[in-house]
Amino acid sequence: MRVSVYRKEHFNAAHRLHNPSWSDEKNKTVFGLCNNPHYHGHNYELIVKLTGKLDPETGYVYDMKKLSDIIREHIIDRFDHKNLNLDVPEFKKLNPTAENIAIVIWNTLRSKIEEEFEIKVKLYETERNVTEFPADL
Amino acid sequence: MRVSVYRKEHFNAAHRLHNPSWSDEKNKTVFGLCNNPHYHGHNYELIVKLTGKLDPETGYVYDMKKLSDIIREHIIDRFDHKNLNLDVPEFKKLNPTAENIAIVIWNTLRSKIEEEFEIKVKLYETERNVTEFPADL
Amino acid sequence: MRVSVYRKEHFNAAHRLHNPSWSDEKNKTVFGLCNNPHYHGHNYELIVKLTGKLDPETGYVYDMKKLSDIIREHIIDRFDHKNLNLDVPEFKKLNPTAENIAIVIWNTLRSKIEEEFEIKVKLYETERNVTEFPADL
Amino acid sequence: MRVSVYRKEHFNAAHRLHNPSWSDEKNKTVFGLCNNPHYHGHNYELIVKLTGKLDPETGYVYDMKKLSDIIREHIIDRFDHKNLNLDVPEFKKLNPTAENIAIVIWNTLRSKIEEEFEIKVKLYETERNVTEFPADL
Amino acid sequence: MRVSVYRKEHFNAAHRLHNPSWSDEKNKTVFGLCNNPHYHGHNYELIVKLTGKLDPETGYVYDMKKLSDIIREHIIDRFDHKNLNLDVPEFKKLNPTAENIAIVIWNTLRSKIEEEFEIKVKLYETERNVTEFPADL
Amino acid sequence: MRVSVYRKEHFNAAHRLHNPSWSDEKNKTVFGLCNNPHYHGHNYELIVKLTGKLDPETGYVYDMKKLSDIIREHIIDRFDHKNLNLDVPEFKKLNPTAENIAIVIWNTLRSKIEEEFEIKVKLYETERNVTEFPADL
Repeated sequence: MRVSVYRKEHFNAAHRLHNPSWSDEKNKTVFGLCNNPHYHGHNYELIVKLTGKLDPETGYVYDMKKLSDIIREHIIDRFDHKNLNLDVPEFKKLNPTAENIAIVIWNTLRSKIEEEFEIKVKLYETERNVTEFPADL
Repeated sequence: MRVSVYRKEHFNAAHRLHNPSWSDEKNKTVFGLCNNPHYHGHNYELIVKLTGKLDPETGYVYDMKKLSDIIREHIIDRFDHKNLNLDVPEFKKLNPTAENIAIVIWNTLRSKIEEEFEIKVKLYETERNVTEFPADL
Repeated sequence: MRVSVYRKEHFNAAHRLHNPSWSDEKNKTVFGLCNNPHYHGHNYELIVKLTGKLDPETGYVYDMKKLSDIIREHIIDRFDHKNLNLDVPEFKKLNPTAENIAIVIWNTLRSKIEEEFEIKVKLYETERNVTEFPADL
Repeated sequence: MRVSVYRKEHFNAAHRLHNPSWSDEKNKTVFGLCNNPHYHGHNYELIVKLTGKLDPETGYVYDMKKLSDIIREHIIDRFDHKNLNLDVPEFKKLNPTAENIAIVIWNTLRSKIEEEFEIKVKLYETERNVTEFPADL
Repeated sequence: MRVSVYRKEHFNAAHRLHNPSWSDEKNKTVFGLCNNPHYHGHNYELIVKLTGKLDPETGYVYDMKKLSDIIREHIIDRFDHKNLNLDVPEFKKLNPTAENIAIVIWNTLRSKIEEEFEIKVKLYETERNVTEFPADL
Repeated sequence: MRVSVYRKEHFNAAHRLHNPSWSDEKNKTVFGLCNNPHYHGHNYELIVKLTGKLDPETGYVYDMKKLSDIIREHIIDRFDHKNLNLDVPEFKKLNPTAENIAIVIWNTLRSKIEEEFEIKVKLYETERNVTEFPADL
């Protein structure tokens, strides 16, 4: 009796896409406006999916309050109203594309949520650009 | 040539989370505000996913009007503007968490829709709390 | 230099529409499914509009954090996960229609927000049924 | 390190559901209002999901600008503000149900996007009627 | 004690923008893709705002079920799954722009709703293009 | 016969709230997380409302393509993927609060759109924080 639950949270952040091993020209060609050295920003919508067995005593797969608290403590409080490149250590040397942000969030939550639960991260950078990790097999 | 279709419906209902085998104190600790003995309520958004083979004569997997009618007759007419705990027999002894509601809906629809079609139920209790049954393998 | 700002909050509640001076039959005729004696419920979306002069020092009309805190303390904490008819004193003798809920919220906020700011309340009972108080002249 | 990305685009089109090998009566019975010989129309929302390996140099699975350009050139420019039955060659002999539109879009994009990337198409005909191709295994 | 209520409904229709007193060339220049002689279409979202005095007996400004029924009988049943130019008499000689559709809807509803209530019509042709009649003073 | 039309556009930008005539401590107290010297960012949704007389020849109040082009040329191309404080001259000495951004947008568009049309600007900084200029009388 495996069920999935989803919790949606959001954070607002600035970022810049840049590969320091490339020339400025190549960075501009590949990343376009997203390479602006002064940064730009987004309202990121984050959806965490957690899959596991139903607990017959509670009727819950997972306490959504607890899931929300974990996301807030380990992601939102560290990413919200921040500059991802400058303020979040994981992106000191990692380009904060939506894909990499989703992977960092997944890695962080994976270490905080019991292994018996599968997790998946979906991140809306805008309404039109979305990423998900890990991909379905 | 397998295709999925989704139909979205909604219902408004009151409910209370409670495990009668526990003390009042434990119920309050586990279920928090959701344990209010006077009930609270939600606008539930229900998405039913149905997967099957494309019928080349119609270009349909399934007649969406028929799918909508089945959901309305067997779910919406029985859940909408109801108190789930008091008015819906399935929850007389089953805690109406989003997870259990999704499972009850799936079981009900499973018996009404031909076996050649797979079905999955996604239920939005709020915009931020969502559940899905069955989970992907 | 008058500007409006809007703050959106939400609460989940149970309610029942009922006029105790009417017969049960008339209540059922007028209020239909909303008259269910066991209650039903909604995810209410509340938008508070506040209009006033721009403060040139802050660039704010009003501190949105302060507006959010006022709404949370005086409305959300008292209405969320409650039965409006049974748990909220204002509706002991007042029918909790969307219109009356909006008026109660407006009256409550009016006494908490400085008179130099005009306020207006918009309340989504569902995505399709919405009310607003006061009406535009 | 497989990641999925999603790109959302939209187009507005007229269509009519009709099987020319059936009688007018049968067409009307099966397709109802959608069989109107004068056509009706929709704002179609199209979500293309692309799954592949993360490129460590860019932090991208795929350049979303390139994905958007491919969708615009091969789908939007050909479908938007068109009558699907009359103006789009693929539907000259194929009933433009949401299912068939999704399959045509998938076939078109499949030939334009490198084979190392899996793609999936989700098409919202209305907020309540959605289709997806291919279905999950 | 004046309150406003809003009811949201929707319809799907085909249309074409065209002024028969102009040359084909001028029509194409002014209306662009919307001039396609084969029509295109939209999911129209219609919001009807009604303003009046609160009835203290019901706590309603207006019975939303009655408002919904009026809109459905006089607008939705006549516009939904139709070609506005060919199937709806009001547009036989009137260009079905969003503005004109909103005015036609307003005129139709104005004759069906008691004069003591003010009404206003907001029509979403797409998520990005919206019209409202009458304009605020 | 006055009608309003609305056009929705969006831009993504970084910003920081700061009053240079205040101490760092006062800035932090008043603006909180929004005072982060490294900036944060948003997906801004911009809705421009334009009111005027219906042109009987076109059935338009205003050509929405032209309105969109004006907004794109004078606002989106200058604000999108920018740091408002550093890249947009209007905010060199003006705090880029949502209120001030809306006023700057209104001033810019006011000089580009014919005086016979009234305009109003609504700006969503997040789904929950919105501002509008000018306020209704």
